[in-house]
Amino acid sequence: MTTRGFTSDNASGVHPAVLAAVTAAGEGHAASYGADTVTAALAERAREVFGPDARIFPVFNGTGANIVAAQALLQRWDALVTTDRAHLVTDESTAPQLVGGIQTRTVPAVDAKITPDQLAAALEDDGSVHHARPAAVSLTQSTELGTTYTPDELAALAAVAHGRGARVHVDGARLANAAARLGTSLRALTTDAGVDVVSFGATKNGAMFGDAVVVLDPALAEPVDRLRKASTQLASKMRFVSAQLLALLTDDLWRDNAARANAAADLLADRLTALGAPPRYPVQANAVFVAVPPAALPRVVAQAPVLAWDAGTVRAVASFDTTPEDVEALVAQLAPFLG
Amino acid sequence: MTTRGFTSDNASGVHPAVLAAVTAAGEGHAASYGADTVTAALAERAREVFGPDARIFPVFNGTGANIVAAQALLQRWDALVTTDRAHLVTDESTAPQLVGGIQTRTVPAVDAKITPDQLAAALEDDGSVHHARPAAVSLTQSTELGTTYTPDELAALAAVAHGRGARVHVDGARLANAAARLGTSLRALTTDAGVDVVSFGATKNGAMFGDAVVVLDPALAEPVDRLRKASTQLASKMRFVSAQLLALLTDDLWRDNAARANAAADLLADRLTALGAPPRYPVQANAVFVAVPPAALPRVVAQAPVLAWDAGTVRAVASFDTTPEDVEALVAQLAPFLG
Amino acid sequence: MTTRGFTSDNASGVHPAVLAAVTAAGEGHAASYGADTVTAALAERAREVFGPDARIFPVFNGTGANIVAAQALLQRWDALVTTDRAHLVTDESTAPQLVGGIQTRTVPAVDAKITPDQLAAALEDDGSVHHARPAAVSLTQSTELGTTYTPDELAALAAVAHGRGARVHVDGARLANAAARLGTSLRALTTDAGVDVVSFGATKNGAMFGDAVVVLDPALAEPVDRLRKASTQLASKMRFVSAQLLALLTDDLWRDNAARANAAADLLADRLTALGAPPRYPVQANAVFVAVPPAALPRVVAQAPVLAWDAGTVRAVASFDTTPEDVEALVAQLAPFLG
Amino acid sequence: MTTRGFTSDNASGVHPAVLAAVTAAGEGHAASYGADTVTAALAERAREVFGPDARIFPVFNGTGANIVAAQALLQRWDALVTTDRAHLVTDESTAPQLVGGIQTRTVPAVDAKITPDQLAAALEDDGSVHHARPAAVSLTQSTELGTTYTPDELAALAAVAHGRGARVHVDGARLANAAARLGTSLRALTTDAGVDVVSFGATKNGAMFGDAVVVLDPALAEPVDRLRKASTQLASKMRFVSAQLLALLTDDLWRDNAARANAAADLLADRLTALGAPPRYPVQANAVFVAVPPAALPRVVAQAPVLAWDAGTVRAVASFDTTPEDVEALVAQLAPFLG
Repeated sequence: MTTRGFTSDNASGVHPAVLAAVTAAGEGHAASYGADTVTAALAERAREVFGPDARIFPVFNGTGANIVAAQALLQRWDALVTTDRAHLVTDESTAPQLVGGIQTRTVPAVDAKITPDQLAAALEDDGSVHHARPAAVSLTQSTELGTTYTPDELAALAAVAHGRGARVHVDGARLANAAARLGTSLRALTTDAGVDVVSFGATKNGAMFGDAVVVLDPALAEPVDRLRKASTQLASKMRFVSAQLLALLTDDLWRDNAARANAAADLLADRLTALGAPPRYPVQANAVFVAVPPAALPRVVAQAPVLAWDAGTVRAVASFDTTPEDVEALVAQLAPFLG
Repeated sequence: MTTRGFTSDNASGVHPAVLAAVTAAGEGHAASYGADTVTAALAERAREVFGPDARIFPVFNGTGANIVAAQALLQRWDALVTTDRAHLVTDESTAPQLVGGIQTRTVPAVDAKITPDQLAAALEDDGSVHHARPAAVSLTQSTELGTTYTPDELAALAAVAHGRGARVHVDGARLANAAARLGTSLRALTTDAGVDVVSFGATKNGAMFGDAVVVLDPALAEPVDRLRKASTQLASKMRFVSAQLLALLTDDLWRDNAARANAAADLLADRLTALGAPPRYPVQANAVFVAVPPAALPRVVAQAPVLAWDAGTVRAVASFDTTPEDVEALVAQLAPFLG
Repeated sequence: MTTRGFTSDNASGVHPAVLAAVTAAGEGHAASYGADTVTAALAERAREVFGPDARIFPVFNGTGANIVAAQALLQRWDALVTTDRAHLVTDESTAPQLVGGIQTRTVPAVDAKITPDQLAAALEDDGSVHHARPAAVSLTQSTELGTTYTPDELAALAAVAHGRGARVHVDGARLANAAARLGTSLRALTTDAGVDVVSFGATKNGAMFGDAVVVLDPALAEPVDRLRKASTQLASKMRFVSAQLLALLTDDLWRDNAARANAAADLLADRLTALGAPPRYPVQANAVFVAVPPAALPRVVAQAPVLAWDAGTVRAVASFDTTPEDVEALVAQLAPFLG
Repeated sequence: MTTRGFTSDNASGVHPAVLAAVTAAGEGHAASYGADTVTAALAERAREVFGPDARIFPVFNGTGANIVAAQALLQRWDALVTTDRAHLVTDESTAPQLVGGIQTRTVPAVDAKITPDQLAAALEDDGSVHHARPAAVSLTQSTELGTTYTPDELAALAAVAHGRGARVHVDGARLANAAARLGTSLRALTTDAGVDVVSFGATKNGAMFGDAVVVLDPALAEPVDRLRKASTQLASKMRFVSAQLLALLTDDLWRDNAARANAAADLLADRLTALGAPPRYPVQANAVFVAVPPAALPRVVAQAPVLAWDAGTVRAVASFDTTPEDVEALVAQLAPFLG
């Protein structure tokens, strides 16, 4: 079909450079399970991007990355602190519990962001065996509501966590969008902010499939390596995942892709605001949340390629290839339902 | 590198037709999580291939397919019968236990094939709560030792299982090779033989990545659909998996690919036999097991692209694109170590 | 020590009749794992108490009962609805996740009771595989805040659940206290109200240890029987658990014990109210929550045998053997910190 | 009934001294969850018995002890080496997998005992993520076939394990019987032999219920403490478990009880041998395995209080209170089926 989707940034396809990389990687034979030259090049590039101690473990998808990373941070009796908006909590079925036996301790969050005070409270451990020990926090960047944490905010949260013996995971399914928006490097939002392990998203940034767990604390490398396999996330022909990740990390393609998506979201926000219907949450990445009358919601999602978010809200997410024309078409579809 | 690999059939890359299908699928936007037209076409094609009640659920890899399928067949207190050679037992780390809490009950198997008598004995249930209830069997086709079950053998095993209230899973990472060898349809080895659910392999048959759980008993569709997500095996841009599976199922490309791999294995077996070193197991698919002196094994695997299988054996697996020249080169590499 | 405890009703010991039953049960040899005459007598008595279809499965403790019962109600992809006060959520470490892979979906509750509207909303299922399917609700009776559900309230909740295809579990660690307070039978609060499975508590009602899963829907008997063993909750010398449960169910000893505990709680509530410090929640069972200045809380729990509940509250729970003198002593200890 | 059971040593009841200890412990109130004086006395006694670094964690039953201890030794990607006769493998349903996600790697064992060579082979780790890492071994003492490991044998096995970075668990459901038979202390069979953690059985040695995890490596104390709760094995009124364990550890009651059971087994073995039907396995503890004609097995177990073990074998286990008269009665019941 010719409809351009805004339900999520997974409505888009593959960026030409990523496809070209996959095509090139497919020629001939190669060692499997990551012992190939493409994966080796990715490992080297990941060290340049995230720092010399970084190790990258390609996986199939974001849920897989999150579950692998979280298990590496948690003993069987530990809890993972997240916001009540976390994808890990709301959109991964029972995967955290089924695969990892993970207990989540959720914090009600404004704009899907946890504050240092909230984190400090959530990490309080009375030492009682009756209570799961809060041993790590998972922060989503950019968040499920399209907001972002600044490097300073991340550093403050990491300080709170580390000060209490807890570790920090970043669910970066849209880390690229955050970095593009903030004008920072990926490293500034992860390694330099004190993050221990990252789910680095590629699928929503122009890949066909594939994300990665990026380990910033070397002590986590062995657990992640083992858990990737034990959690069904190890690709045999890994070069096809690695090639995509490498393409995105080459010449900062990730940033270009994210910037285009962010710009499209900005345009949408501007147009909606001009129509008297400003977005519900700050537009700090590539997602825009639009208030619609609850009674109209079924018609909205039937007529416009957006996602029903809650009773009175739809979500529009721009992709790397979303054009101004796409945005204008969406505005025209949404306009009858606004205000 | 230019070396052609025989360590496994995942050393090969992607078949041109599969790559072309992926490229075509990547144009423009599409609905995610399987609501796209490519996945719809795959569903239709799967019904033609496996029967009108079949439902296909694309997943990322074979371990994922196995774990999802097995969980759909087992209550939390059940055991899964397999041979002691089953990939599920030997090569999937703790994935069965970690993800599914699966207890395996292994049977020592000749040529990696379980017999009806062995199965009947393994499925005996005394009803005691102290013993996990054997509720399903997983058969690998073609097996981990390169042998195959005939349709009659499968039907006999399925009859044993069903007669005891147990279900039948086929780990078909190399189902195509078995069907090509036996000259049967995929349906003859699954639906018609009484199989309940199949892990249908594509990765080893010319795909980049991707396999599928094919449900033949409609009652398993809902569990598999839910478990695919809960086990981290649901692709967001599913068209990229579906396109590969569809390409392989179109014009029986799967059979051509498998037949070429099988023929290469046959050639290798013939050449080894001529050299006085016949394969260790019947060559009924695309794998050949070669006896080598234990002391020489490290040198063998250092000099030839084969897998160290056990103390005195190496494994060579042919791929869809293995050429006679590749085989001859391998024979030359192995020759010094034979006999 | 001679201090009489109010931290929980597990501070008390064993009722003499329960101890006598255990002593009697211990004479001579008996079949193990529940094939003994005491367990048979308990099974018969349970049918009299809960209805002819009831089946009782003794277990070791309340956490075990809850985890076994919940697993029997949930597929691997399902969620369990509870209040945010549920013991299952707050005080069982990671047991629900570790043992059962259970995802809980919590509802903020007034006085620890969920309302039909809250339940209906929590049980809404959009059918999406991304979301765990809410398949059951667990209600605590009496609740973690010492309140109770009336039979009508339970029936209304069960109707909501069953109308949506969901099942109802009652965590009845203190079911006896609720029934004694409400003047109802145990059956009125369970079977007759539409409950499917109950964690029936004995430990807090005068037993040494031991609780039971009481199955009211016969379809759950097999799962509970299997899961009790698989969850490490099957006693080999079961007569020692069964004897305690039988003693409590004989001549309504459970009710006498609960009534005494409830009366002690009432007395405490009355005395506190007279001192200008009425309990924080309705006293509808045997627990009383007392407001204290946060700054004084460490001193309160150091000087009085009560539990620090939250920053400004302590909990006092009366036991089957709590005397008026015990209550007066506690009031004297608490008085300096009130108001 | 008046029949004296030999199906297992859980057919017997409670030793009078244990019952007296329970009765004494039940008077008055006490702190819960192990903060009571009886549990403190047990902790002190455990240090005297097992060594100054020992920590004892009472649990409900042997399966619970095993599952808690094994989890403390294993990361999520590790395997546990056992014999193919291990109770953990054969008689605990899916508990190891369900609760702990534990993969067992079984070794065929003569007389249910693993040899150092077998252990060394089973612990070999190729470092591949495809294979669960064998990180610990569980030895049963006395074994499921009534044999025992000597202190030297244990030390040799522990040396093999520790030399490969693996840990040693002893499933000591019948540790007392082994120590009594060998004339050693409990410490000689555990701490001094290099064992890391023990499931110490009391139920089969004259308790009503209750066993313990004894931690000999202090680094395991925190994991065991947390896992006991998370695995549903923490008793609220713990004094009732602790009192039983303490009674058995006082004045070596455990040894007297075990010695009587062992002597009864010896008498049975002697009598059977005299009848021309010597036991199938060495009688080194309190279990005797008797060959019977397969066709007669149903009649044997119908007429004699023994357990059907396999097609041609029944098991008779003596208890702490088994008398010579009990043995003679059993011999009379078995005699018609022998030879």
